[in-house]
Amino acid sequence: MRKLQSFLLTAILAFPVLTASAEEGMWLFNKVPDPVRQEMRRNYGFELTPAFLDHLRLGSVHFGNGSGSFVSPDGLLFTNHHVAADCIQNLSSKEHDYMGNGFYAQSHAEERKCPGMRVRVLLEITDVTARVQGKGAAITEAAEANKLRKAEMSEIENACSTGGFDCQVVTLYAGGMYNLYRYKEYDDVRLVFAPESGIAFFGGDPDNFNFPRYCLDITFLRAYENGAPAKPRDYLRWSKQGTQVGQLEFVSGHPGTTGRLNTVSQLEFFRDVSYPLTLERLASFITTAKAYAGLGAEQARIARESIFGLENSQKAYTGFLSGVRDEHLMNEKRAQEIALREAIARNSDLQRKYGAVWDEVAGAMKAYSRIYKAVLLKETMMGRGSDLYLLGLMLTRYSTEIGKPNEDRLKGYNDAAIPNIKRRIAGDYPIYKEFEAQLLANSLQALAREFPDDPAVKEALGGRSALEAARGYIMGSKLDDRAVREKLLEDPQRIRESKDPMFTLIRILDPDARKLIATYQDTIESVVVDAETKIARARFGIYGENDYPDATLTLRLAYGPVRGFEDKSIGYIPPFTPIGGIFERATGRDPYILPESWKAARARLQMNLPFNYVTTADIHGGNSGSPAVDTKGEVVGIVFDGNLPSLPNRFIYQDRTARAVFVASQAIAEALDKIYGADRVLKELGLR
Amino acid sequence: MRKLQSFLLTAILAFPVLTASAEEGMWLFNKVPDPVRQEMRRNYGFELTPAFLDHLRLGSVHFGNGSGSFVSPDGLLFTNHHVAADCIQNLSSKEHDYMGNGFYAQSHAEERKCPGMRVRVLLEITDVTARVQGKGAAITEAAEANKLRKAEMSEIENACSTGGFDCQVVTLYAGGMYNLYRYKEYDDVRLVFAPESGIAFFGGDPDNFNFPRYCLDITFLRAYENGAPAKPRDYLRWSKQGTQVGQLEFVSGHPGTTGRLNTVSQLEFFRDVSYPLTLERLASFITTAKAYAGLGAEQARIARESIFGLENSQKAYTGFLSGVRDEHLMNEKRAQEIALREAIARNSDLQRKYGAVWDEVAGAMKAYSRIYKAVLLKETMMGRGSDLYLLGLMLTRYSTEIGKPNEDRLKGYNDAAIPNIKRRIAGDYPIYKEFEAQLLANSLQALAREFPDDPAVKEALGGRSALEAARGYIMGSKLDDRAVREKLLEDPQRIRESKDPMFTLIRILDPDARKLIATYQDTIESVVVDAETKIARARFGIYGENDYPDATLTLRLAYGPVRGFEDKSIGYIPPFTPIGGIFERATGRDPYILPESWKAARARLQMNLPFNYVTTADIHGGNSGSPAVDTKGEVVGIVFDGNLPSLPNRFIYQDRTARAVFVASQAIAEALDKIYGADRVLKELGLR
Repeated sequence: MRKLQSFLLTAILAFPVLTASAEEGMWLFNKVPDPVRQEMRRNYGFELTPAFLDHLRLGSVHFGNGSGSFVSPDGLLFTNHHVAADCIQNLSSKEHDYMGNGFYAQSHAEERKCPGMRVRVLLEITDVTARVQGKGAAITEAAEANKLRKAEMSEIENACSTGGFDCQVVTLYAGGMYNLYRYKEYDDVRLVFAPESGIAFFGGDPDNFNFPRYCLDITFLRAYENGAPAKPRDYLRWSKQGTQVGQLEFVSGHPGTTGRLNTVSQLEFFRDVSYPLTLERLASFITTAKAYAGLGAEQARIARESIFGLENSQKAYTGFLSGVRDEHLMNEKRAQEIALREAIARNSDLQRKYGAVWDEVAGAMKAYSRIYKAVLLKETMMGRGSDLYLLGLMLTRYSTEIGKPNEDRLKGYNDAAIPNIKRRIAGDYPIYKEFEAQLLANSLQALAREFPDDPAVKEALGGRSALEAARGYIMGSKLDDRAVREKLLEDPQRIRESKDPMFTLIRILDPDARKLIATYQDTIESVVVDAETKIARARFGIYGENDYPDATLTLRLAYGPVRGFEDKSIGYIPPFTPIGGIFERATGRDPYILPESWKAARARLQMNLPFNYVTTADIHGGNSGSPAVDTKGEVVGIVFDGNLPSLPNRFIYQDRTARAVFVASQAIAEALDKIYGADRVLKELGLR
Repeated sequence: MRKLQSFLLTAILAFPVLTASAEEGMWLFNKVPDPVRQEMRRNYGFELTPAFLDHLRLGSVHFGNGSGSFVSPDGLLFTNHHVAADCIQNLSSKEHDYMGNGFYAQSHAEERKCPGMRVRVLLEITDVTARVQGKGAAITEAAEANKLRKAEMSEIENACSTGGFDCQVVTLYAGGMYNLYRYKEYDDVRLVFAPESGIAFFGGDPDNFNFPRYCLDITFLRAYENGAPAKPRDYLRWSKQGTQVGQLEFVSGHPGTTGRLNTVSQLEFFRDVSYPLTLERLASFITTAKAYAGLGAEQARIARESIFGLENSQKAYTGFLSGVRDEHLMNEKRAQEIALREAIARNSDLQRKYGAVWDEVAGAMKAYSRIYKAVLLKETMMGRGSDLYLLGLMLTRYSTEIGKPNEDRLKGYNDAAIPNIKRRIAGDYPIYKEFEAQLLANSLQALAREFPDDPAVKEALGGRSALEAARGYIMGSKLDDRAVREKLLEDPQRIRESKDPMFTLIRILDPDARKLIATYQDTIESVVVDAETKIARARFGIYGENDYPDATLTLRLAYGPVRGFEDKSIGYIPPFTPIGGIFERATGRDPYILPESWKAARARLQMNLPFNYVTTADIHGGNSGSPAVDTKGEVVGIVFDGNLPSLPNRFIYQDRTARAVFVASQAIAEALDKIYGADRVLKELGLR
């Protein structure tokens, strides 16, 4: 526990040193501190230069739901199959199952546009901390200060966006620092190559979050500008040597929200309230989706992505829950918290500013416990799996919010967000009404079970079974017609007056949900944000930029060696799996079915080459698709998962058993060559 | 369960077929049946020719305690470090710790002779079944028939030995077949190269019988004839490609006694009586040896080999015990037995010949249960770890047996065995009296605890503590002086008259031990051997040579692909570990300490090369040092262990989790080149 040690050994504070073995950290590209650079120099003889960082940052891209990189001068993009899955699924049909069979464009002309997909490159980072903090500084009422800061952030973003850029003010150190990120966005992204989902997600749910592993979880896309392949300023070269056991590798990507500054009362809330309830709902949705998938091959195809998403969430929350249930982890968090609180208590000025925050958070968590089930069932998980419900909800909220002053609007509906909302509403989605009805019925059933006397719930069901009611709202809805949605978007009044049955349902349920959102924002979120800001500032004052900020879905640098780990039953697990292993792992029973293309190529493959591998890099959800580069800055792999022991890294980093999981560049090149004959791609990667 | 299926599906018996996935079997080189060849052809496209078999047999060698191979035209021998450990230990001294630091001879002149080491090559196999079986055939009394057969075997061996060869009549199919094996023996074997024990046995006891694994468990020796390097007719070439995931590999070696024909009553005896008691004794010896090793670095060095041997036995018996405690395994054995007994019962002739054997064995096991503890404490484990005691015992028994007619002698003391007995007695062993006293005291203490009223035990202790008594017998003994032993050997009368205190102890204890041996041989062994002969004959009549005989420490062929396995907690374990993994596995704490030579070479190594790997080959103790060859007959690895799940293979072969563990040829070549600079060896292997 580096942080704790540094803190307790106060003599060291003036010269912060990272412990030798820890490759902890999701570092900001503009703030990699000296101790990290020193550690790389000492342990790996590597000098981390600004040029290396700039090149890696400009070669990295952000997908809405993950990370990726440019890997050729002609805009070739490299990410995970599961990051590009929406595109592949949307381009698929009964006739062309690109998910099941893969996709390979033999020419630019054959590359197919991904509906609604956009990627962006982080061009520039500007510090706007003073402007944002200045707005809330004089206000003591937390909710009000929160609102003012949000308004200022919107204004900064709007001003930046006028240059045609995609701009975002990023909250770092829980409000200790604010940076404006200026992005170049590409809104024409086309599919170039995707393998069969059977190999991309080989091992399915049983192997998900596990290692040893055998997945070719990759997809190549291409960014276009003005109808021609984009020419990005920077792209990452493909390594000819590839990953090597023990070598230092860097990961550049967009980890999602971590909770490393969470207080113990928050972790206890997760442990006792939110995670168990969330897991209960996920298990229920999975049962419903699997029952539908069991009806036939076409139903299985329709449900596949949903089941994957739900099971993925289920495993992730199970992993988080195991973290907060681990008394060792909790005791470390308690020790950290006690040490920080005692240090603050020794200084009356600090005590006055920060002394109360832990009790405030504990109070907010108590309040949240009382409403959590309602928030989960009426808002967070309501309508999960039904695109029609979510489209209806977005349209409804758009129609009510658009007329309000920017600063009064519901989160996610301010001016800066409106173009994205409109794009999402106008997107092209295949909607499977019967499947959606099954999942919506699940949501309604849960409401009826937990809130039997709630008038809105009674009204929504209308005396029918949940399934009858759900079918009633879904089957007659026209919101699956994109033209209808576009027409509605033209005039919010049309939405408010529409008789579409989906709107009927939303008008019954949404008022309650919005009340819950307001309660949450005013009495819980504002307290937590304020407290986290204070904790982050107290820490920031001590550690400065030698500490990295909690993950925020923005670009971060992680690093670490290719290294195996200890399993408690079998002992040491080596850091890579050989390609040949998949032929043994492939039992022929789902989900261990090898595509025909692999079986046919078997005799030609170099069986001992690394297929998947692990490093100690500090990653988290959102890093999917992140490139791994060696010290030459060349691509040696791609992140596609973390192992189960890495999930509690959400709260505390540990590198004993937690590992990031990658596809090795060697296996990708071998597969493109000997299995897929994807010569165009190999040429662009410089391998032909 | 192939055997059971073949048996139940009687229609198939006329055309025996092996199941597709089973690579079961420890086949005789002169009797690889057609179904095995057909399976290789079908699954691997490989034609097993007589030339391939002859070459592999003549390139293989038998060490007394393991297996090995010739790998150069100049008699270079290749085996495990732990097979050659006695030699390395015997050549070591306080000044030259070749165990700890390794050994490399820069020239032929520097190669050092291994005291007492001999290897032999199997030149010829002759069937002598008719001669041996003919002798006992007319006798119905089992003990008498057994004695007659042994006499005939001795006679055949003696006749063969007169040609200057080493000859052995091998009992196969528990007496269903007898083959005369004619060997060429090399009695001048010299040490060429041994790595540090820290890398040969990296991971020590915790990793023993485990995989993943990182051991360079190899040693190169050289056979000499007439003072010059031997020129063996055949030697195995070193593969340049090495082991490959999924490839078919052959193992040629000397598996020890297996118990695949054991009856259920025997397995129950192991489960309930012999294994638990044996494990109790082993644990006790280990405690004693470790306490001694804890006294200092020199004591640790002295005790190292003993502790290794004891812990190795402990893990092996634990594995066997887990097999017989596994109800799944026991039920399969029961089903096999019931099926065989029912088939026999349906035919009155078979029933008359074989019907009673299971009850006879069960009776013998009941009798054995009554004397087992005494046999274990007074004979099998008595004096374990004390070379002085064992030398004294051999001398004493030699002096009493040599005057008797050959056929009346104690097992192991017949004419054919005498030269070996004499060699062992006259061998050069470093004897550490204090360590031996501690271990002998352990044996005496166990006797005193279990047989407090036994007159011999009382006399041996003579009112002293066990340690005082043990020191009394050991400290004054001159049997540690080789010249004294050689002098005693010259005239058995000298032994009988010697006043050496070790003889005093043995004269007190041995009469009881010999009575127990006699009881065991007459009332248990003879019944079991007779029963096993009958069972084997019943099976032999049905399956013929499509069944392989139980292992008997003679040369066998096993085969199987390089294949990973399932661990119940982590899932699939890939089939090889990369070299680089050892640098992570090396924590710096015993037994995970890397030799300095490895640390220094780190930057030069190819980290992704296979280090250790596993195949499904059907091996057992005694296969240590066996070469693994690919379908070209070239060396791709060397057996050094089986994983824990392979131990129950003693009773039933299963290939789901049981694996043989090898050092990969790639890692050996890499280490000889980049770590040890062993150019001479590399040149001989054709790698320079």
